[in-house]
Amino acid sequence: MTANGSGSLSALMLNCTLHPSPADSSTEVLGQQVLDALAEHGVSGSQVRVVDHDVRPGVELDMGEGDEWPAIRQRIVESDILVLATPTWMGQHSSVAQRVFERLDAELSETDDEGRLLTFGKVAVVVVVGNEDGAHHISAVAFQCLNDVGFTIPANGVTYWNGEAMHTVDYKDLEETPKETASATATLAGNAAHLARVLRRDGYPAV
Amino acid sequence: MTANGSGSLSALMLNCTLHPSPADSSTEVLGQQVLDALAEHGVSGSQVRVVDHDVRPGVELDMGEGDEWPAIRQRIVESDILVLATPTWMGQHSSVAQRVFERLDAELSETDDEGRLLTFGKVAVVVVVGNEDGAHHISAVAFQCLNDVGFTIPANGVTYWNGEAMHTVDYKDLEETPKETASATATLAGNAAHLARVLRRDGYPAV
Amino acid sequence: MTANGSGSLSALMLNCTLHPSPADSSTEVLGQQVLDALAEHGVSGSQVRVVDHDVRPGVELDMGEGDEWPAIRQRIVESDILVLATPTWMGQHSSVAQRVFERLDAELSETDDEGRLLTFGKVAVVVVVGNEDGAHHISAVAFQCLNDVGFTIPANGVTYWNGEAMHTVDYKDLEETPKETASATATLAGNAAHLARVLRRDGYPAV
Amino acid sequence: MTANGSGSLSALMLNCTLHPSPADSSTEVLGQQVLDALAEHGVSGSQVRVVDHDVRPGVELDMGEGDEWPAIRQRIVESDILVLATPTWMGQHSSVAQRVFERLDAELSETDDEGRLLTFGKVAVVVVVGNEDGAHHISAVAFQCLNDVGFTIPANGVTYWNGEAMHTVDYKDLEETPKETASATATLAGNAAHLARVLRRDGYPAV
Repeated sequence: MTANGSGSLSALMLNCTLHPSPADSSTEVLGQQVLDALAEHGVSGSQVRVVDHDVRPGVELDMGEGDEWPAIRQRIVESDILVLATPTWMGQHSSVAQRVFERLDAELSETDDEGRLLTFGKVAVVVVVGNEDGAHHISAVAFQCLNDVGFTIPANGVTYWNGEAMHTVDYKDLEETPKETASATATLAGNAAHLARVLRRDGYPAV
Repeated sequence: MTANGSGSLSALMLNCTLHPSPADSSTEVLGQQVLDALAEHGVSGSQVRVVDHDVRPGVELDMGEGDEWPAIRQRIVESDILVLATPTWMGQHSSVAQRVFERLDAELSETDDEGRLLTFGKVAVVVVVGNEDGAHHISAVAFQCLNDVGFTIPANGVTYWNGEAMHTVDYKDLEETPKETASATATLAGNAAHLARVLRRDGYPAV
Repeated sequence: MTANGSGSLSALMLNCTLHPSPADSSTEVLGQQVLDALAEHGVSGSQVRVVDHDVRPGVELDMGEGDEWPAIRQRIVESDILVLATPTWMGQHSSVAQRVFERLDAELSETDDEGRLLTFGKVAVVVVVGNEDGAHHISAVAFQCLNDVGFTIPANGVTYWNGEAMHTVDYKDLEETPKETASATATLAGNAAHLARVLRRDGYPAV
Repeated sequence: MTANGSGSLSALMLNCTLHPSPADSSTEVLGQQVLDALAEHGVSGSQVRVVDHDVRPGVELDMGEGDEWPAIRQRIVESDILVLATPTWMGQHSSVAQRVFERLDAELSETDDEGRLLTFGKVAVVVVVGNEDGAHHISAVAFQCLNDVGFTIPANGVTYWNGEAMHTVDYKDLEETPKETASATATLAGNAAHLARVLRRDGYPAV
């Protein structure tokens, strides 16, 4: 699961919104801002709206005929940076994000000749949006799940926006990007690109 | 969403395993033990394996044609006690359980003539199983989600089993039910039945 | 740990702010609003600012000379409703609140002649304030800890306020109480008073 | 808060047990195993049992006369790797660990000439022990708190041990180190040492 050893870095954003395309998605708005910020550091980006695909329940690499996870996984394999973007529902990451974590569980059995998980050398960052609170908790859960399966978390590896308690405004409907969120996005992008670059050059040792 | 005012109490267990029927399910084993314990207190029980149904992503009561949540919701409406049973994956409740919480979010808009959520008067309890740790965290999340949408949590409202760190034994394969889990199940059942009974007789006041 | 069987109900609010008296405390402001709302339902209230007392680290009922937890515990014993009020730091409940949970752990060994925890029959509710997000996660943790040691959680058993992401406004400095928080406080109070009343009359069965 | 740019790497383990010295501490046992494993990678180690010191409640760098946090902080400043070791109480990190996170909150205001937090360039790893479940949740919370204040989390940045559900065995009383935990400790140490080394040579860019 290592990206190619030369050339420019690439990032894949998994948008874990509950809304199938072509509906608007606040999660996509902030996720795209992260991809744009990464581009300023020479990282090419692309995205998948996971709910548009039939990702089967289970914890195997491939859950059989019709399962669309293997194709998404292949794109993770080919990327240096994973941007896990999720909305906040009931204060939690979405069921779509949890499905992604469950499917990534299979990576715990995938190692290279040196005994290293195939995700070693890849960097993960987290994006959280929501009308209401949840970003700290959700980034905690995401960091743990992604780190458990082998991703490295750069300093300040999350950007987020939550509205005031019990309010209903959506991030996509804000008149402008809050400067605090923009600042967090910029820091995250610089750190993620840097860390992915040094890990590509100096990978983790054999286990 | 109130159950009938007289007659015996009923409980619905939602099994949030990732495995579709007819696969064995550790979650079902402990969930059924809870239903059996509730039966000793005069509570009739039934269950739904949620993954066998097409529960669409979203936060509306009905996500449209083909959505099987409305039928499951109707069974919740007709029950006095909800038993939310989930496996542990990546230390979290399953994506199927999170899907249930997301769909229950719609209950926040459903009130009776007195301004009370339709879930007021219903009791919720939690069942967690897993090879590895997670029960405390998962019961926390479940209590919060279920309480936010109006369920009452009886004293000691969870029963669970997790194996030792990084072990792989399944609850369904244990030679016998651990006495600690059996004890927690018995206490939960007695308390849930009692609380559902007193809340049926003395419902919460108007909001 | 059962309150007296007759007379009016009483509530104890544990303010788990990090700021010793006489500093202002946002947590106290919302906690007092809960006590005021409970008073409208005939519940008398009092409070303890825990950080003003030397609550020793440990998980015993009494950690020895100088430990001020036993006196606080006695006030919990004499109350029908526990109001656990905490600020949000790093997205988590405060170290003072965690200290309270650790000391309550000792209740798991305290049972009456019927095998019931002494907290059975008591109701717990949660108050969370913070500049930034955390309320859902913190109420989850608090519900779990309080329920594990025997408290019952009434429907909608939390009231809270968090500001917008990465903002720094304090609840105590808001010009007026947000109507959403006021509404949550009112519902919580009505439900907690009702549930404490019915549990006093109809306690949980023997274990 | 950057360690010196040359010479060998150093690690500081903060033992967040509730038990003051000289009591035995399971957290220390596993924390020391991490320091020993780091030593095999050329990292010198030392530790602080935080509960032995008067770390005042608050979120400032220095809470005034008698506050022993500034001296502990100085040792963090001089280290390349922070090993945050905590027991599991009520399924949560200890109140002592939460106190550490609260005091680290002050780092959000401390930046160098390039606008970088002083923790940028430092690596953090997590150690969790407990009779009962909690390690996944606790490592999630710790990763989030430590990453928010600027630490980088290496791949597989946690080692842990929890016993089976509702059991009471302590890690310090196990006859031998479980091989799964030993394996996690070894991987963590190799990855943390490597990442600290590359970040010392190639620090994050200016913000």
